Amino acid sequence: MKSIIIASTSTIHGSGYLEYLLDELKVHFKTADEILFIPYARPGGISHDDYTKTAAKAFKAIGKKVKGIHEFKNTKSAIENAQGIFVGGGNTFVLVSQLYKNEALLPIKNAIKNGIPYLGTSAGSNICGLTMNTTNDMPIMYPPSFKTLGVVPFNINPHYLDPIKGSTHMGETRETRIKEFHAYNSQPVIGLREGSWIKVTGDSLTLKGTLDARIFEYNKPPYEVGTNSDLSFLK
Amino acid sequence: MKSIIIASTSTIHGSGYLEYLLDELKVHFKTADEILFIPYARPGGISHDDYTKTAAKAFKAIGKKVKGIHEFKNTKSAIENAQGIFVGGGNTFVLVSQLYKNEALLPIKNAIKNGIPYLGTSAGSNICGLTMNTTNDMPIMYPPSFKTLGVVPFNINPHYLDPIKGSTHMGETRETRIKEFHAYNSQPVIGLREGSWIKVTGDSLTLKGTLDARIFEYNKPPYEVGTNSDLSFLK
Repeated sequence: MKSIIIASTSTIHGSGYLEYLLDELKVHFKTADEILFIPYARPGGISHDDYTKTAAKAFKAIGKKVKGIHEFKNTKSAIENAQGIFVGGGNTFVLVSQLYKNEALLPIKNAIKNGIPYLGTSAGSNICGLTMNTTNDMPIMYPPSFKTLGVVPFNINPHYLDPIKGSTHMGETRETRIKEFHAYNSQPVIGLREGSWIKVTGDSLTLKGTLDARIFEYNKPPYEVGTNSDLSFLK
Repeated sequence: MKSIIIASTSTIHGSGYLEYLLDELKVHFKTADEILFIPYARPGGISHDDYTKTAAKAFKAIGKKVKGIHEFKNTKSAIENAQGIFVGGGNTFVLVSQLYKNEALLPIKNAIKNGIPYLGTSAGSNICGLTMNTTNDMPIMYPPSFKTLGVVPFNINPHYLDPIKGSTHMGETRETRIKEFHAYNSQPVIGLREGSWIKVTGDSLTLKGTLDARIFEYNKPPYEVGTNSDLSFLK
């Protein structure tokens, strides 16, 4: 049974890395002593080692060990033998490029299907969707494809931002960008505000955290759903 | 002799489409009665016809006709016979996908080399750089490559935005994104604020408009250059 947490962000303002999620992660990863961390998204270009240390420090607070995927010789068997998987945020283009290069996407998808608990934050959440077409990241690397895990039947827009009232900037708002996505694509998009996450348990999908999420369906005006809403109607 | 205007935006706050640039465009396109408009970036997914009407309305004020590239049977000869070229803004991924699909990139590059005056705004400016890796747009379409015209030896970041003081949002600032670009790429990036443009005349490159621009060079702290600065030192 699938067990996934798709979080908008790793860090909320004024709080430590993963801190706001730790109670949830304790339950989510209850069967795992060690978490396989995938640092490929390299926020700010930091090294895999440094990024893994950040993740390890956070998970230590709930008694879990963390090992980076780059510490294993065989990526595929590392994923197949993982007790839990965490894909951290950073740049989605870099993450997806590395996942393809290391042939890691299919093993991760299979692990999730086999019930291995998965946590994604930001870029690591983007890849849970059908495609990475709704990332906010700058395309600093060219991946072989925009297709991602597709473990949920829609796309994710993490760090969802409401339009800034009174802004004189002529660049597009997030809502405008997602509407533009729907000029060429038809799957729903969930705008996840920072502090929100989607909890997937088998076929059940629930919005968690304190905030509403904004749903963009093809050919429909966008609308809000409240926390604890069932999201399994989205297809 | 190359003659290019690379503008951050088509529209500044409180002013009509291209209005702030019209005096400059009158001179830039002085040898052209008709401008070939490339509407491929389709802002908000609007049709090529509607977008071309917007461009035509603006150019009418300085006595120029506008024809959309989609109105021609043969894209290549339309570009080869153009007296002036304008590539409008919208989504850079959509624009670049369509340019590749219609085999328009090389003809545009050759036209520019042959001295045909070119205007780009936003996405149409992004493609003047070596690659589109520093666009701000959402990757709503997968182009065959991120390589673009390379008629200037650096990348463009249009609609450059300074960090918002006191923001609690955890998404990356523009500066952070461009620094991250330099973790994997080495060409300079020019952050062009709205209302700024680069005027290229042969080998001379000058920053125009009323604002400073922010320059990001590989392995250097970013810095500001003032309007009317010569930018030909950037390589």
